[in-house]
Amino acid sequence: MSENQTKFVDYIEKNQDKLVKSLAEVVAIPSVSGDPAYRQDVFRQGEWIKAKLLELGAEATTHDLGMQKLDGKDIPLPPVVVGSLGNDSSKKTVLVYGHYDVQPALKSDGWNTEPFELVHDEKTGRLYGRGSTDDKGPILGWLHTIEAHKTLGLELPVNLKFCFEGMEESGSNGLDEFVTKNKDTLFSGVDAVCISDNYWLGTKKPCVTNGLRGISYFKLSISGPARDLHSGVFGGMVHEPMTDLIKIMSSLVTPQGEITIPGINEQVKELTDDERKVYDVMDFSISDVDDATGSQTTISDNKPEVLMARMRFPSLSLHGIEGAFAEPGSKTVIPAKVTGKFSLRLVPNMDPAKVIECVQKHVESEFAKLKSKNTMHLAPDHPGKPWVADPNHWNYEAAFRATEKIYGVRPDLTKEGGSIPITLTFADALNKNVLLLPMGRSDDGAHSTNEKLDLSNYVKGTQLLGTYLYEIAAATA
Amino acid sequence: MSENQTKFVDYIEKNQDKLVKSLAEVVAIPSVSGDPAYRQDVFRQGEWIKAKLLELGAEATTHDLGMQKLDGKDIPLPPVVVGSLGNDSSKKTVLVYGHYDVQPALKSDGWNTEPFELVHDEKTGRLYGRGSTDDKGPILGWLHTIEAHKTLGLELPVNLKFCFEGMEESGSNGLDEFVTKNKDTLFSGVDAVCISDNYWLGTKKPCVTNGLRGISYFKLSISGPARDLHSGVFGGMVHEPMTDLIKIMSSLVTPQGEITIPGINEQVKELTDDERKVYDVMDFSISDVDDATGSQTTISDNKPEVLMARMRFPSLSLHGIEGAFAEPGSKTVIPAKVTGKFSLRLVPNMDPAKVIECVQKHVESEFAKLKSKNTMHLAPDHPGKPWVADPNHWNYEAAFRATEKIYGVRPDLTKEGGSIPITLTFADALNKNVLLLPMGRSDDGAHSTNEKLDLSNYVKGTQLLGTYLYEIAAATA
Repeated sequence: MSENQTKFVDYIEKNQDKLVKSLAEVVAIPSVSGDPAYRQDVFRQGEWIKAKLLELGAEATTHDLGMQKLDGKDIPLPPVVVGSLGNDSSKKTVLVYGHYDVQPALKSDGWNTEPFELVHDEKTGRLYGRGSTDDKGPILGWLHTIEAHKTLGLELPVNLKFCFEGMEESGSNGLDEFVTKNKDTLFSGVDAVCISDNYWLGTKKPCVTNGLRGISYFKLSISGPARDLHSGVFGGMVHEPMTDLIKIMSSLVTPQGEITIPGINEQVKELTDDERKVYDVMDFSISDVDDATGSQTTISDNKPEVLMARMRFPSLSLHGIEGAFAEPGSKTVIPAKVTGKFSLRLVPNMDPAKVIECVQKHVESEFAKLKSKNTMHLAPDHPGKPWVADPNHWNYEAAFRATEKIYGVRPDLTKEGGSIPITLTFADALNKNVLLLPMGRSDDGAHSTNEKLDLSNYVKGTQLLGTYLYEIAAATA
Repeated sequence: MSENQTKFVDYIEKNQDKLVKSLAEVVAIPSVSGDPAYRQDVFRQGEWIKAKLLELGAEATTHDLGMQKLDGKDIPLPPVVVGSLGNDSSKKTVLVYGHYDVQPALKSDGWNTEPFELVHDEKTGRLYGRGSTDDKGPILGWLHTIEAHKTLGLELPVNLKFCFEGMEESGSNGLDEFVTKNKDTLFSGVDAVCISDNYWLGTKKPCVTNGLRGISYFKLSISGPARDLHSGVFGGMVHEPMTDLIKIMSSLVTPQGEITIPGINEQVKELTDDERKVYDVMDFSISDVDDATGSQTTISDNKPEVLMARMRFPSLSLHGIEGAFAEPGSKTVIPAKVTGKFSLRLVPNMDPAKVIECVQKHVESEFAKLKSKNTMHLAPDHPGKPWVADPNHWNYEAAFRATEKIYGVRPDLTKEGGSIPITLTFADALNKNVLLLPMGRSDDGAHSTNEKLDLSNYVKGTQLLGTYLYEIAAATA
């Protein structure tokens, strides 16, 4: 490590109380973006970050994204906080992203402590509080990196740009357009992007992440009678939309998770032997899935296969049926119109347009087999493409080296099964390499009760983010 | 017709205004049994009937059925009004049943007029109002029969017993036990039972009804993870309860309505050629179904087959799924526990216990095929047996002859696809022949908006009920 690097790492090590104090400060702001009652707190959190950036010597501005309708009210969207620090043309410029809004939380949901009060359990070393790991801890990681350098009188090894949003937990309304519109102004000159908003695969070994699955969501409607019918009076006489829909939904995927829509599996990029080996070494076991699901229901008992089911292959889930009887109790209805909801998770080289085409063709063919007098309609939602970044890039090499320096281990290179849409936006709009560099662990309970961030992850994670910047500077572009 | 019979029929013909006036009086009482806000009106309607019976010289008492929990409130059940008129051992005794509660109705549901205000459309001859046909009109038919005889100074040809309940639209709580408990006291000496609470098959030709399908309702649950999962993170890794449930639900019935559970169709009584002919002559056309469903979705285009699908054969309907995503919009959930609801309509000689056994065996076998690590549980609801009365009985003969005298036509002998549980209770508890003798037409909209009773059905229907009593008296038991 360079002298500056070492000074920075030591500073963070010795000033853990500062990190905890600032985390307590932000956890106390209930910036819940999904509930209009908390909207002013989301704004307050945005202003807090802007003020902190200015205090640390960065430039920072808030950007209005317009209005949204929430629970019947028209309310202003939280601002995007955009900032920059350094403008040295001899240095690389790294754009970092985080979100300052959080998921809802009430003590009565099952929290052991007040969710908006940071509780440091000294015995376990865990910091409990809503937003601790998702995503206030990582944002503070960046801010403390700057604070350390300012206090130590050290220059940052790179130029930084910041994009902190306040709507990530509620759909990131307007952010896509904002980034695309400002790619040549606010976000010009960016050489690489780093997003710290996901988690280690397990609880022991750090990872960097270079892939996310995409999604194609479908609503399949079958309509028959003009109104709901009594099954006593009409049962047996008419084609029932539910019977038709259930038949078609049953033709999409097997209980073993194999997608049975012709033309889908053919689109999946072939697995190479080398690639397969990546999954053998990952810090992961079947019991991690069992712990997370509270059951023993993995389809495979083979670790690499279970991992690839999440990271490497598509999946199809049946989410539910709108329009049918969904309440407790018994009701003898023949629903007039039912809409099945299902979605596919997409991986390279699946093309959303081609997926829609295959699904449309399949459901039409299945419906024709039913010889039903009902009518069918398929409505695809706006799809999200899968994202994969090339890990043979100095951005990833910097993250690997930084992890080795802080954690003493080569990180796993993982892919996530879900989507973080802003990742693809940055990749597409800025056309730069994007890296996901997580701070927390798989068991942090990001959207759940008793969300926590281990103090060690917070401290080492902050050291990692700063060290990553040094490794970026040292890398040959 | 006998002299008395003719006098009675003429009296009803000339006093139509009296019939309309009393119907207006009872329609104005919103005796909605399903909403605690109207419970006092249900009581008021019960008291009105008791007072009217007493006024007409009958004996009448109200009987407390205890309490019920409705919308979280403990409220008293509406009373059963039991009455009798005449105690002549040389006459037959007929028990008549009706219900004085009604379905909910709000003008905003889509009514053209105030639902609890009787509106007489002189152009069409229709009497609009909630309860007009279901079932206040028929109850008044009996009361006006008595009133006519009282006014004319005529003796009734039979002894009458009355059982009017106030909870039919909401499950008839407590009535079963009440009838069974009082079969040898309040309901002793009954020779035959007449229930006027169903409808003509079509709109032109009267019918008498001697059968109802039974029902077996099932709740099939599949459980996997301990909590709902994110389909991005877990899709493909785990056995999804929805996938399993949809597979099993798809194995129960074809889009052509054929039940595919082994052992079910084998229980159905064989159709004879003679029996089949009954369906050829019924006043019915496919367009009646199309009008009722607002669609052209009958499975068959052959009239007798469509009729038999309702009256003669079992059916299986898939009602919905509890626990899955049922709201509008998109949600990428893997539901942790889902419960499919389905029911079979039963016909002779299906035995509910055997039906449950077949369903249990089938779903277990289908679930085993899935090789899923999830768990399955089948919960059958309390079933209802099918009911069929022997039409070669003086009770039916009387109804046939009365219909011929009033309408000039031999009525259709129909069966209903649904259930009226009290029918089976009377048949089983009293062990007497039970007859369904409807007053209204198929298009009356009993549970719908703009419920109506045609004035002609009300007048001729009242004449029919009275004439039926004369034919009972004339019949050889």
